[in-house]
Amino acid sequence: MQKWLKKEKELRGKGIADKQIEETVAFLRQKGIDTVWDVQAAYDSSLFGLKDRCSFGSHGLCCRNCNLGPCRLDGEEISFHTKIAVPRLKRSSCGKTADNMVAGMFLQTVLRGTSSHIGHAIHVAKLFVKAAEGSDNFPIKAEAKLHAVACELGIDTNDKNTLDIAREVGQKAMEDLVGPGEGPMSFALALAPKNIDKLVDANLIPQKGAAETIVQGIHSTAQGMMSSTDHLIMSCLKFGIIDVLALYISTQLQDILLGVPTPKEGKIGMDVLDKEKVNILVHGHVPVLSEMVINYADKLKEKAIAAGAKGINIVGTCCTGTEVLMRLGIPMAGSTIMQELIVGTGAVDAVCVDVQCVYPSLSAMTKSLHTRLITTMPELRMDNDTYIEFTPDNADKAATQIVEEAIAAYKDRSVDRVFLPKTKGNKLMGGFSTEVLIEIFNKINPDEPLKPLVDFIIDGSIQGVAVIAGCLSSKIQTDMSFVTMAKELLKNNVLVLATGCAATGCARHGLLNGEAMHLVGDSLRGVLKTLGKSAGLNGSMPPILHFGSCVDNSRCAVLASAIADYLETSIDKLPLVASAAEHVVEKAAAIYMGVISLGITTHIGVTPKLGGSPYVINKLTKEMEGITGSTLIIEIDPKESAKAMINHIQKKRKELGI
Amino acid sequence: MQKWLKKEKELRGKGIADKQIEETVAFLRQKGIDTVWDVQAAYDSSLFGLKDRCSFGSHGLCCRNCNLGPCRLDGEEISFHTKIAVPRLKRSSCGKTADNMVAGMFLQTVLRGTSSHIGHAIHVAKLFVKAAEGSDNFPIKAEAKLHAVACELGIDTNDKNTLDIAREVGQKAMEDLVGPGEGPMSFALALAPKNIDKLVDANLIPQKGAAETIVQGIHSTAQGMMSSTDHLIMSCLKFGIIDVLALYISTQLQDILLGVPTPKEGKIGMDVLDKEKVNILVHGHVPVLSEMVINYADKLKEKAIAAGAKGINIVGTCCTGTEVLMRLGIPMAGSTIMQELIVGTGAVDAVCVDVQCVYPSLSAMTKSLHTRLITTMPELRMDNDTYIEFTPDNADKAATQIVEEAIAAYKDRSVDRVFLPKTKGNKLMGGFSTEVLIEIFNKINPDEPLKPLVDFIIDGSIQGVAVIAGCLSSKIQTDMSFVTMAKELLKNNVLVLATGCAATGCARHGLLNGEAMHLVGDSLRGVLKTLGKSAGLNGSMPPILHFGSCVDNSRCAVLASAIADYLETSIDKLPLVASAAEHVVEKAAAIYMGVISLGITTHIGVTPKLGGSPYVINKLTKEMEGITGSTLIIEIDPKESAKAMINHIQKKRKELGI
Repeated sequence: MQKWLKKEKELRGKGIADKQIEETVAFLRQKGIDTVWDVQAAYDSSLFGLKDRCSFGSHGLCCRNCNLGPCRLDGEEISFHTKIAVPRLKRSSCGKTADNMVAGMFLQTVLRGTSSHIGHAIHVAKLFVKAAEGSDNFPIKAEAKLHAVACELGIDTNDKNTLDIAREVGQKAMEDLVGPGEGPMSFALALAPKNIDKLVDANLIPQKGAAETIVQGIHSTAQGMMSSTDHLIMSCLKFGIIDVLALYISTQLQDILLGVPTPKEGKIGMDVLDKEKVNILVHGHVPVLSEMVINYADKLKEKAIAAGAKGINIVGTCCTGTEVLMRLGIPMAGSTIMQELIVGTGAVDAVCVDVQCVYPSLSAMTKSLHTRLITTMPELRMDNDTYIEFTPDNADKAATQIVEEAIAAYKDRSVDRVFLPKTKGNKLMGGFSTEVLIEIFNKINPDEPLKPLVDFIIDGSIQGVAVIAGCLSSKIQTDMSFVTMAKELLKNNVLVLATGCAATGCARHGLLNGEAMHLVGDSLRGVLKTLGKSAGLNGSMPPILHFGSCVDNSRCAVLASAIADYLETSIDKLPLVASAAEHVVEKAAAIYMGVISLGITTHIGVTPKLGGSPYVINKLTKEMEGITGSTLIIEIDPKESAKAMINHIQKKRKELGI
Repeated sequence: MQKWLKKEKELRGKGIADKQIEETVAFLRQKGIDTVWDVQAAYDSSLFGLKDRCSFGSHGLCCRNCNLGPCRLDGEEISFHTKIAVPRLKRSSCGKTADNMVAGMFLQTVLRGTSSHIGHAIHVAKLFVKAAEGSDNFPIKAEAKLHAVACELGIDTNDKNTLDIAREVGQKAMEDLVGPGEGPMSFALALAPKNIDKLVDANLIPQKGAAETIVQGIHSTAQGMMSSTDHLIMSCLKFGIIDVLALYISTQLQDILLGVPTPKEGKIGMDVLDKEKVNILVHGHVPVLSEMVINYADKLKEKAIAAGAKGINIVGTCCTGTEVLMRLGIPMAGSTIMQELIVGTGAVDAVCVDVQCVYPSLSAMTKSLHTRLITTMPELRMDNDTYIEFTPDNADKAATQIVEEAIAAYKDRSVDRVFLPKTKGNKLMGGFSTEVLIEIFNKINPDEPLKPLVDFIIDGSIQGVAVIAGCLSSKIQTDMSFVTMAKELLKNNVLVLATGCAATGCARHGLLNGEAMHLVGDSLRGVLKTLGKSAGLNGSMPPILHFGSCVDNSRCAVLASAIADYLETSIDKLPLVASAAEHVVEKAAAIYMGVISLGITTHIGVTPKLGGSPYVINKLTKEMEGITGSTLIIEIDPKESAKAMINHIQKKRKELGI
């Protein structure tokens, strides 16, 4: 919709809110190096003759699937935009209507997201299966969680040793992800027992062998396949819930392998880079390699010193950064959208990536610097990369090689080229989860740890729970959707959980820091203080609870499911709401459709490519409620967004009679 | 490239070559009903203010993967087109270069194609597994082929009954497609034993569990994933060869289930519709349902007569049409691109579709007619459809219901609305295959049936073999790329095999008809006459050998592989060439990349969306030879295309010293 795009432009016109970002973008501009903000500025300036982003593409009215096209359909929105007053082309060459096209393009987006998370989960599950054979590199660190997961999966753990149990868990994960096997995914039954009936009714229950389901899903998006708008939307829900299951499997297995995160204080900001040390930036999403790199950085410290450095400094970005922050306290250099800036400082000796959200621009950027661009997985090769394949079997060798590459690169670092912004970063506290919350509440009520939380909700001390999640965008004022919304929510006594870049964005603005507690409404502040005391965190208890990386959105689903189970109701009845306000990547679409499938109403705050079909928008934002009990809220303005989320919570409270 | 697009426009400016198409398009235009040709005309006329197809999309320089975009890059081609003289935007928001973007978009296309064929193969393999349990609906019809396939797969058939062997074959197919299992696909080893080394060297050997490979492939195309242009192109080859394997599995299993096709004379043209009968159009690609519908049409004939019809007339289109033509002699109403016209006659009572190439426009068209639009598989639902799900277990019930729907619809048919073009259709002969050719040659040399074929090639009677395959396009003069090329090839004594719409296009123009033998060069005509005599076809022996549906491109690969094995060489050394001149759907891209992987140089004759990257074009059209021994030829003009194909054959002959 044009009004959404207009609002976006107005918001980004306010400039960059994070001073470190502002300083570094300015520095790189001087060097003639473009970043994601410069490309957006080029579209805004019309300097390149581009006259804004393409209106057809922005509204989902362009299809290039087959070679009869590209086909562009003309809708009300486009007419308005291009001032065409002639008859409008209403069908593609093959006969897609605008509704067909918009829904079909959206399904392709969701499917790339779901494939990404299934891909991630398969990598972790395969490593888990190796670990279950007994592995020095990957011992099982969280036995208690292994038992808990096994129990939820209905595995009999009596008289079985750790590896035996792990083997069965790994097998169930592989069955769910790849097959063979028939019937609902084992992890689906474990995640949302009370919601299964609703999912079954809507024909949305995910079946074992998700890979095959995805192949048929992709098949359904090819030319001359699925063209029922309604069924395309139902497919988005179906692949959404599969996506959430993939998140859940990844989180559960990563926790068992690497340990359940616990609250720890860390730092975020580009100043975590150390001019005097070898700096390695870990980037991506699968934390198993980065933990190995951290181990070997410690073992190879002397080599770095021999090379003239004062040691090795590992810093993170993106979700891999979040994972090592919340398990090991590794500092974060910034959010994913800052990757060009972090590398552009010239202080990073090696950027070591696994999968997802890695900007192709790092190729050109590292080519002009001493920085090694190290790729490690076959799905993510880059121009100008150094490929060191990581497999469960060669983990130690790969990690050694990566650290050695960084040390070698350090010797080539140009001191004069290093730029670190003057503005300092922030403290944050990460590492919350359902387990951590239950442990905290356990100290308050050991018999029924969920009761205190539910009581706080019932008595209104906590009005409801909001999850803010997903990417940061250069299409609006970066960070500020989440920051503004979070402040509004906290002020209104809504408990805020944050994951992924939403969390790191808020963290850079100080909201994951005990000092920001004054922003919180009275009753919620009381609750948080009680929790902080119970957890022994006291003054450092932050207003927003960092619930982990993007895949850890599953932790929020687990919490929602646990509350629903405790109250013997379904998730859609609860005063919960989610937001992927600055959604960028396809995974965000897969997650928010999955979250909606589970019954949680979800907000997005950057224009989705749906504007070409009022029918599709109506389905998602209104009629969805009849299927899942939840809807999509589209609202660009952050204050209005917060208002809509609070209204939703109040509506649910009213329906519950609380 | 602009010159390609210009040539296309010049070609389609020549008008529609098939008189039946021309008449029916004109009739529908009068009725205010648009077809694929009208949409193309709208782009040509600028009536809709669209000013031609989008130049960014046409050149692969537009990316809408994530919500930072849509991003459009400006390349030489676009500059030329839009006459922009300002600095050009060289990267997307995330930093993709034009090369990254073009190669990445192409990989997405290939992956949709490969997913389609894997999806098809999984459907067939699951039905095959059911059949192997013993099924009245699906008895094993081709025991000899079952034994041959089992033998190629290394299955010990001693002391095993038919169903036991079938079970093992089915299991190997499922392992290849879905897993579990490790190592190369069993069917890969069976198809191309002499080419395995080349594929292994290029890291292209397909592994068991193709579904998982595809998920990781889709994963690799998401934002922030694979951005190495070279690796993106290698992925296209990798998913191309997986695609060919999926074709091969489908063909082999369909032959075992339904029988190996044999040459039979049939009819093609819209006049196969019978005004006095209930007309059912079978459409799609998976022939198992349509054969059931044909059975039940016969059983339910009396019901049709009771409804006032003279019987039930089944006609086909698309590949399902081809499948039932070559096994059962069912007439074809036309090629896939004519589906709107066939339904638009108002004479079709039910169009029964399975999967792929089904135009969404049939929804609107059937809504304004009495025609029932029957969908049968969950991946292809349409607006306004009647869904009768087909599963191996309910095949008889589904087929009954479909026929009954058609009879019910017949009663609503408006006689006045029925339009059949005055021009009559053509005869064609379909049903050739490697098995049929070997049986024919067996009569000439029972010891070494391939020897006569090879001898004809060596002595030059056959200069080489060309496969023409794939879709028909409205972007050039529909049909005439293939028709023109085929005539040139035949005149120059190149044996022409045709599949899919290339075959049906040539058939409508009389080239699969014995009467066209005068078009063939002397030496090839001599060979064809010898073959016709040996096969007992005599005067009806056609100049072009119809090798089946699109999935039956695998039959051509089998023949190429057999010749290579016989000569103890690899496929790329042979005087073979292929063309998907009028390629439309994503499957075509998957197939031609697969065929190139196998070492067969392949021509395409409609502009692919690669123009934005001279680097990618150079890789595919030149440097590929160093990897696969084959290249992609891009040439729009049909006569020039034929010349390029003949040149390739002559080059290979020269290299072989023949």
